[in-house]
Amino acid sequence: MIVTLTTDFGEKSGYVGVMKGVIYAMYSDARLVDISHYVKPQKVLEGAFLIQTIMRQFPPGTVHVAVVDPGVGTERHSIVLRVPEIGYFVGPDNGIFSYVIDAYPNLQARQITNQAFMRHPVSATFHGRDVFAPTAALLARGEDFEGVGELLDKTNLKQLENRWGSWSRTSLATLKGSIIHIDYFGNLITNIHQSLLAGKEYTVEQITGVGLRGRYIHLQKEGIETTYANAAPDEYIALFGSSGFLEFAKVNGRAADISASENDLYNATVSVTFR
Amino acid sequence: MIVTLTTDFGEKSGYVGVMKGVIYAMYSDARLVDISHYVKPQKVLEGAFLIQTIMRQFPPGTVHVAVVDPGVGTERHSIVLRVPEIGYFVGPDNGIFSYVIDAYPNLQARQITNQAFMRHPVSATFHGRDVFAPTAALLARGEDFEGVGELLDKTNLKQLENRWGSWSRTSLATLKGSIIHIDYFGNLITNIHQSLLAGKEYTVEQITGVGLRGRYIHLQKEGIETTYANAAPDEYIALFGSSGFLEFAKVNGRAADISASENDLYNATVSVTFR
Amino acid sequence: MIVTLTTDFGEKSGYVGVMKGVIYAMYSDARLVDISHYVKPQKVLEGAFLIQTIMRQFPPGTVHVAVVDPGVGTERHSIVLRVPEIGYFVGPDNGIFSYVIDAYPNLQARQITNQAFMRHPVSATFHGRDVFAPTAALLARGEDFEGVGELLDKTNLKQLENRWGSWSRTSLATLKGSIIHIDYFGNLITNIHQSLLAGKEYTVEQITGVGLRGRYIHLQKEGIETTYANAAPDEYIALFGSSGFLEFAKVNGRAADISASENDLYNATVSVTFR
Repeated sequence: MIVTLTTDFGEKSGYVGVMKGVIYAMYSDARLVDISHYVKPQKVLEGAFLIQTIMRQFPPGTVHVAVVDPGVGTERHSIVLRVPEIGYFVGPDNGIFSYVIDAYPNLQARQITNQAFMRHPVSATFHGRDVFAPTAALLARGEDFEGVGELLDKTNLKQLENRWGSWSRTSLATLKGSIIHIDYFGNLITNIHQSLLAGKEYTVEQITGVGLRGRYIHLQKEGIETTYANAAPDEYIALFGSSGFLEFAKVNGRAADISASENDLYNATVSVTFR
Repeated sequence: MIVTLTTDFGEKSGYVGVMKGVIYAMYSDARLVDISHYVKPQKVLEGAFLIQTIMRQFPPGTVHVAVVDPGVGTERHSIVLRVPEIGYFVGPDNGIFSYVIDAYPNLQARQITNQAFMRHPVSATFHGRDVFAPTAALLARGEDFEGVGELLDKTNLKQLENRWGSWSRTSLATLKGSIIHIDYFGNLITNIHQSLLAGKEYTVEQITGVGLRGRYIHLQKEGIETTYANAAPDEYIALFGSSGFLEFAKVNGRAADISASENDLYNATVSVTFR
Repeated sequence: MIVTLTTDFGEKSGYVGVMKGVIYAMYSDARLVDISHYVKPQKVLEGAFLIQTIMRQFPPGTVHVAVVDPGVGTERHSIVLRVPEIGYFVGPDNGIFSYVIDAYPNLQARQITNQAFMRHPVSATFHGRDVFAPTAALLARGEDFEGVGELLDKTNLKQLENRWGSWSRTSLATLKGSIIHIDYFGNLITNIHQSLLAGKEYTVEQITGVGLRGRYIHLQKEGIETTYANAAPDEYIALFGSSGFLEFAKVNGRAADISASENDLYNATVSVTFR
């Protein structure tokens, strides 16, 4: 069975390799897939976004492990979510599964409390190795979900407030959101989902873009493109990406280069206006 | 069977993970090998170079997937090349298989048109997921090459003009080329292949090096080295790397640091003079 | 059987992919685990540290390959270490297995001289592909250790001088060491191991921190923390990490940002004072 791994550990330090060693030691037939280990450190929302983009793409029964965990060592819960049509999600209860919870009201949640699902001694700093990797290995191997620990009330699971962009309160023609991921191409992916426009009759006239210390992306072309190839080099374009979120791209360039600071981009407010 | 993956997707965003999910869902026994996901975005020539360096290193029957695809969403073809002694090459017809085509005149080429080799709906921006991953999975699983789509005329396959350095027209003592890859050590790898010197009687007297806005690498030692260990720290050396292309290195340093701009290096002209 | 890979090759260039192709060609059931390919180029000590952190985390019989090899092409030996309770270590005899040698006096060492354990022709620059990958594949497949080559005298194996921090000669209250790894979080990991304090009665009163061109990390809290979560944002803390080495962290920030130069950090001296 497949186990996917999404962390903010980077790939310099062997932390991911250690998790894989723990998994293989408990379940030698595991198929391990790295999703990303370059979540911006402690940006739980970016981790949540990545889980959202991949959760429907794997065979049923897949175990998705996510470790972006600034609260490791505190009293935050370690959890497993079970979604019958997907498989399992294993990680901290800190909002990293926000989009999963929104998408699958039929999920069941359990707290990881069974010591048999942990590697001992359990450290205070590395639950990826000591809690989440062994739990994932056992679930992928076929151990019962019931054995993980007690059921949790789904309504108490942590969800991130800022996971969805929304219509502005002051203007019905403006969508407000933020940047939740910057990819290797320098594309800026926002939390504004195309479902906000579903069923509406609208004409996109202008997207003013990313506000950032007074700087804006001005789109040379009006409207939303369906592919990068529709615009000329160095033009900024906006499009709904393969997971349905609005993104800004610079054709043959890096939209992210409008700022020298990745931090500023992650903290920027995005406004998209319609007319 | 092995499936290798070479892209310009980076490893931050889960795009590669999604391709792996698609492959595993169609062929659960796949052995997946990442070659590189750090091709400079849209640098098809760099992707072609990487495919060239690895194509002879895998067991027969391997399926090599390459996705550096600035033309995704346009009318460029999606293709499979079959080379009996190697296996398959799957990707866009944009020159990324230039060196394969040069090396294997016995190859067969087909356009991917069979809908059964695609994941539906086929997006306009992510053929890695929707076309190339499923095609690779099916071929690795043993589906017939004939099923992919119609045969293409090999002479119409796209090849990159600048894939080989060459003797200067104005001086028989000068080789001209460009930089096609910069590795993690900062070594500068050129498109000047040692086969240009094969069978010739020559004495290498000086290699003036990388021309770049008036800056040059001056080699302290004349000639071409066979190993990094033959020179003193901080010396620049030139050698033919493990795949036969000329590269420049700085011993215990980064040759790439002669420029602050990686873009400038990729656009530089290389001249190597003999006497 | 598992084969782990630790190198300074980066993941841009396909060098690691080629090693994997060679391994799969000789042993198609290999389970390959990347530990890190981002060792700072030619920093053998950093590679040694990473091997130390992962060596106890894999099932018995695992083959650990380490290639940080500035002396490739010289007369340095290629070796295999056998540790019964762990498995094998394969790489150059340049100190990269320093911590293994300290930890396992029961190890056996052999020089790789059997041509059957190599890929031919053996290049002067890429023993990862031509010597270490094939040797690892054959050992993981079950070939006899005796076949590798002759036994080496363990006392002649190369070990790095600066692998352990130590008590200062001039002050019994000061530990001296250096930075041997910087992780993706920007944490600074030193060679000062908690075993130096074992069995001692001591009170940690202050840790003055990282000396670097006159700059210091001042800890806002005295003592050594057990988890990142015990301190306030932007505080510097010190803690013994999951492998027992002292590390400096900035809560919700990057301790490594005290210097613009990673090189300076790797060359810095660390002093930790007790009272």
